Amino acid sequence: MRPEFKLWIENEEGEQIIGEGLISLLKMIEKTGSINKASDELNMSYRTAWGKIEKIEKRLGEKLIKRKTGGAGVGGSELTEKGRTFMNKYHIFSEGITQCVNEDFARIFADYLQS
Amino acid sequence: MRPEFKLWIENEEGEQIIGEGLISLLKMIEKTGSINKASDELNMSYRTAWGKIEKIEKRLGEKLIKRKTGGAGVGGSELTEKGRTFMNKYHIFSEGITQCVNEDFARIFADYLQS
Repeated sequence: MRPEFKLWIENEEGEQIIGEGLISLLKMIEKTGSINKASDELNMSYRTAWGKIEKIEKRLGEKLIKRKTGGAGVGGSELTEKGRTFMNKYHIFSEGITQCVNEDFARIFADYLQS
Repeated sequence: MRPEFKLWIENEEGEQIIGEGLISLLKMIEKTGSINKASDELNMSYRTAWGKIEKIEKRLGEKLIKRKTGGAGVGGSELTEKGRTFMNKYHIFSEGITQCVNEDFARIFADYLQS
């Protein structure tokens, strides 16, 4: 037996504003350097991707994504420093819960796991 | 913002064997004294209810439910002592994760929560 969990963050209205979808999207933007490519990779429409980003940026009052700076004609997007900090925080949060779930499970269900 | 989570336990084949459905069912059997009434209350078929119970009993190698003892003609089911111990363990597990999620969230996202 092994424990599994799903974790997300809601706003005051009970809407999910941070979850695996947003986190995967931010990681993929960092990897591909493009919201368009990132949403394609995740089989998400550009509109959905932007919707997710706008909702959390509005809630946090911070820009997580910016246009890439570079030579003329260089397109693409990248994470802001605040975007990277946010992703890092979520990663620490998620890893901590994974550890908590695994440790508590092993301790509390020890009797069942020996058999 | 507030964190939310869903917690469950899988077997080696990746099937969910313990989750909110099973726990609600056990609680309702304890409350109503009947698998039939409990599954009705939870809009679950009797077959589904039995399936959930059999799967976890087989995995744990323990009976969680037994026929109620009593006078002739007294029907119904109740939790065994092991069934109550199991429910109690799951409750402790779930409450611990709730605490872990809320505390970690408050600590890690403190900057965002002040604004």
